[in-house]
Amino acid sequence: MKVIMDLCVVPLGVGVSVSKYVVACHEVLDKAGLKTQLHAYGTNIEGEWDEVMAAVKACHTKIHEMGAPRITTTLKMGTRIDRDQSMLDKVESVVRQQAEGT
Amino acid sequence: MKVIMDLCVVPLGVGVSVSKYVVACHEVLDKAGLKTQLHAYGTNIEGEWDEVMAAVKACHTKIHEMGAPRITTTLKMGTRIDRDQSMLDKVESVVRQQAEGT
Amino acid sequence: MKVIMDLCVVPLGVGVSVSKYVVACHEVLDKAGLKTQLHAYGTNIEGEWDEVMAAVKACHTKIHEMGAPRITTTLKMGTRIDRDQSMLDKVESVVRQQAEGT
Amino acid sequence: MKVIMDLCVVPLGVGVSVSKYVVACHEVLDKAGLKTQLHAYGTNIEGEWDEVMAAVKACHTKIHEMGAPRITTTLKMGTRIDRDQSMLDKVESVVRQQAEGT
Repeated sequence: MKVIMDLCVVPLGVGVSVSKYVVACHEVLDKAGLKTQLHAYGTNIEGEWDEVMAAVKACHTKIHEMGAPRITTTLKMGTRIDRDQSMLDKVESVVRQQAEGT
Repeated sequence: MKVIMDLCVVPLGVGVSVSKYVVACHEVLDKAGLKTQLHAYGTNIEGEWDEVMAAVKACHTKIHEMGAPRITTTLKMGTRIDRDQSMLDKVESVVRQQAEGT
Repeated sequence: MKVIMDLCVVPLGVGVSVSKYVVACHEVLDKAGLKTQLHAYGTNIEGEWDEVMAAVKACHTKIHEMGAPRITTTLKMGTRIDRDQSMLDKVESVVRQQAEGT
Repeated sequence: MKVIMDLCVVPLGVGVSVSKYVVACHEVLDKAGLKTQLHAYGTNIEGEWDEVMAAVKACHTKIHEMGAPRITTTLKMGTRIDRDQSMLDKVESVVRQQAEGT
């Protein structure tokens, strides 16, 4: 089962700046060979369910190892069985309709 | 690694009423032996990371089998390594302070 | 327009314990006269859109005043125009089907 | 109070394809003069709290007018009082550290 995910990992108890933890999390996702796209409030990820979920767990483990005592993560996850769809498809579907509408 | 989760599974393409899918998802969670608490906008779950995640995947699989072509799920997930904490602890911590404040 | 919301306010830069901010947020919601239900990963709120949103803003303002330099909030918000539905209706709809299924 | 938001609006009861509603929502956000960035699982928005929230309400109203009987929206919202930060700042902070790390 393929999943498209939006991942936002928030370490607590480490002050206000969390970008170094986001960087570490991206390293984990890259090592896992997952397709990712960073945005201003999280990271989109595309891949097989088990691989994506293993990477999310590895992010939590890594961030705890870096010293964060507590993490709260917000995820959105989409699966569909009617057709195959990539992150790019989702964005293009909107952009194409926007272009047609003008 | 223990996780406290808030799970909200939304099947698309099956009309406006989604409660039967929530019911099916709870059956999956119960069979997995997980501690759960239903609320008006999701379900709190407490357990070991791998068991909770396996149950979330089983929910997606089950809901697709019931005929939902597409699912979008919103999750919050908390882990901490500084101390053990249950769902009940979290609620009681707030309620106790509310009582002391009066 | 009526809304049912799930609100989870996370102050950053104030250490790992966030319950006193949750308590303060509940005081704000109570003063606003909103119907609320605390759970282990947030608070359900029911009310008119503008009143609920004003209260969410008041929670951010209050928590910043208490000293939190940064806040990240996760919200789920449901509106519907086909029929009226309360938080209690949503829970009861699931519980009733669970009872019928046994 | 400035807010950086991640908005994901999901209409229910209109089938599996929701892109035309996303397009309509972007028109609402553009008319409101807000800075936005579409991604594969939502839209980042930056602006003054009241203007952003008014636009989110206008999205719900518009999507209901288009015929969606029910909407469930997931939001992430960040505010901070320690310093000014844009969506671009957030992304650049991560990208810069990634470049330095290589």
